[in-house]
Amino acid sequence: MPDIHALRRSLLAEAVARRDAEAALITALVNVRYLTGLASSNAALLVHADGTSVLCTDGRYAGIAASICPELELVVERLSARALTERAASAGVRRLAFEAHAVTVEAYGELTGAGPELVPLGRAVEELRTVKDEGEIDLLREACAITDQAFTDVHTKIAPGVTEREIAVALERRMVDLGAERPAFESIVASGPNGAIPHHRPGARAIEVGDLVTMDFGALYGGYHADMTRTVAVGHVAGWQRAVYDLVAAAQRAGSAAAVPGADVGDVDAAARDIIKAAGHGDDFSHGLGHGVGLEIHEAPLLGYDKTGKLVDRVPITAEPGVYLAGRGGVRIEDTLVVRADGPELLTKTTKELLVL
Amino acid sequence: MPDIHALRRSLLAEAVARRDAEAALITALVNVRYLTGLASSNAALLVHADGTSVLCTDGRYAGIAASICPELELVVERLSARALTERAASAGVRRLAFEAHAVTVEAYGELTGAGPELVPLGRAVEELRTVKDEGEIDLLREACAITDQAFTDVHTKIAPGVTEREIAVALERRMVDLGAERPAFESIVASGPNGAIPHHRPGARAIEVGDLVTMDFGALYGGYHADMTRTVAVGHVAGWQRAVYDLVAAAQRAGSAAAVPGADVGDVDAAARDIIKAAGHGDDFSHGLGHGVGLEIHEAPLLGYDKTGKLVDRVPITAEPGVYLAGRGGVRIEDTLVVRADGPELLTKTTKELLVL
Repeated sequence: MPDIHALRRSLLAEAVARRDAEAALITALVNVRYLTGLASSNAALLVHADGTSVLCTDGRYAGIAASICPELELVVERLSARALTERAASAGVRRLAFEAHAVTVEAYGELTGAGPELVPLGRAVEELRTVKDEGEIDLLREACAITDQAFTDVHTKIAPGVTEREIAVALERRMVDLGAERPAFESIVASGPNGAIPHHRPGARAIEVGDLVTMDFGALYGGYHADMTRTVAVGHVAGWQRAVYDLVAAAQRAGSAAAVPGADVGDVDAAARDIIKAAGHGDDFSHGLGHGVGLEIHEAPLLGYDKTGKLVDRVPITAEPGVYLAGRGGVRIEDTLVVRADGPELLTKTTKELLVL
Repeated sequence: MPDIHALRRSLLAEAVARRDAEAALITALVNVRYLTGLASSNAALLVHADGTSVLCTDGRYAGIAASICPELELVVERLSARALTERAASAGVRRLAFEAHAVTVEAYGELTGAGPELVPLGRAVEELRTVKDEGEIDLLREACAITDQAFTDVHTKIAPGVTEREIAVALERRMVDLGAERPAFESIVASGPNGAIPHHRPGARAIEVGDLVTMDFGALYGGYHADMTRTVAVGHVAGWQRAVYDLVAAAQRAGSAAAVPGADVGDVDAAARDIIKAAGHGDDFSHGLGHGVGLEIHEAPLLGYDKTGKLVDRVPITAEPGVYLAGRGGVRIEDTLVVRADGPELLTKTTKELLVL
């Protein structure tokens, strides 16, 4: 069985050949990591259409690169993209595919003139990354388990007088104590009227009796990003809060259930959105249903009413509908799950019953 | 007195006029923040040569943008760069300066065709950002004070059996408890032989008697990044360790003292490097002396043997020489300081005497 990174490079090589290029220059660092295993702040990878590859990084990472990728030829240079473009030229490459979404206009100017004609690769590596292997899903499952456990351990501390910021810090510290590399993204804790702001930054507001509190957070583990949101109530639940919660929960169930192989991403979004629309809150659900997760917190596919494409087996996604009522508050409920032939595999398992703390 | 952000925009407008452009499209998010005060993950700013400006962000940030920048016209669109390019076209702009170092080739393709000819702005905003006003230096001073206090509070826990990772986590948590938004960058804690790796990631290695331990960390406060490195000894100090420490400390003093207005950045680097070279360790100091700090952890100016340019008043920089001995360990000592007419203002004040813990 070939090394997983060699397998990924051979799949990319096929995409390179299909684009009528002789090689691809990979400069998005997360894509270099996906194709080699090397996590570096300065690296590039040259993948020839026959699969042979050359890795370039600077002196800081030369040792780790040699030990992680012993099968790859290694070039040690600070200007890694330029070095590999020259390398491609000397290897006779005339058409070199590059990542136009990851190369700045300035950097592009430094690559032209080295010899090869630069042609767009598109998001070929991102497309490969969309479907995860079981090893990747294992890492994501562990990231989600840490996230669940942190919620279990911390949610009991949510009480009147505690600030949003204190809750965010407690969740993040607990995830690290449980083995996370770090939080997968900046945690959101939005209480009371702040719950109407989907990306609220947790601040000094103290929780009050009667608040809804939305927490959107996750662990990074082995490079993979968990993403979960739960909304809880403090003290008691008003009628409108219960109604909005039940509505969002129903939408979340419907969206998750629709995430099966072959489903169109617009239809999955609609499965959730139609329920919220039917209740008259269509305008209060101001974002897409979800997104892929993996080596990045936001990856392909995007699930939205204006998106196209079909889900396939082994694609991890989020399902995160919300209803946001300006000045009053909001509810969002989000799981990370994996599209599977026999139905979605739920990775974030914290209860979605409304907790009243 | 004009608002500080309006002042910055008027300085940029002068640079735009000097480039024979009618407006500039600012898309680097940190630059949008510098020019408006708005910290957003999706924003762009159009600055006309007469100083009038238009801010664009998406619905998530519309409310905060309106409250932070009431004097600016606000456009609410998700594709912010494209929206402002079209806005420039409708305002009759024929030559629009853009940030070639911050726009991908793909994004550039979406801007062309909107009307204006796109011409390079260069790093005009980064150049403005190099020299800080006293308000910025106040924030950086507080970031450094938090960093100092975290070292004071945590360094007593460094002892045999404690892991690198535990020390890093303790420093980071203490900084947050002391008011930091978050760590300014991924902390480095490198013990024993790991000290030979300048950017070592703190791991499971437990501190041993006889180790040198290098800690490179800092607080983020009000958007400004502190950067400090200290190396301590555990239990006792071998002769070679003391010699390397004293050498690096002498180089650090010399480099800091050379950081005066009018000094060439290459000469500042040389002031430190020559001392290390003279001791026969020139090849063991494998990076530049330092870098500017501010809204980013690495900013202009870079201080290195191959760099050019002159320091001026009110430029915060780091001075961080190191000596790295493969297989044995290393020493790095780093301060954040501000170039001042009457001599450098030291912001990180933790002792540079060799502590033996």
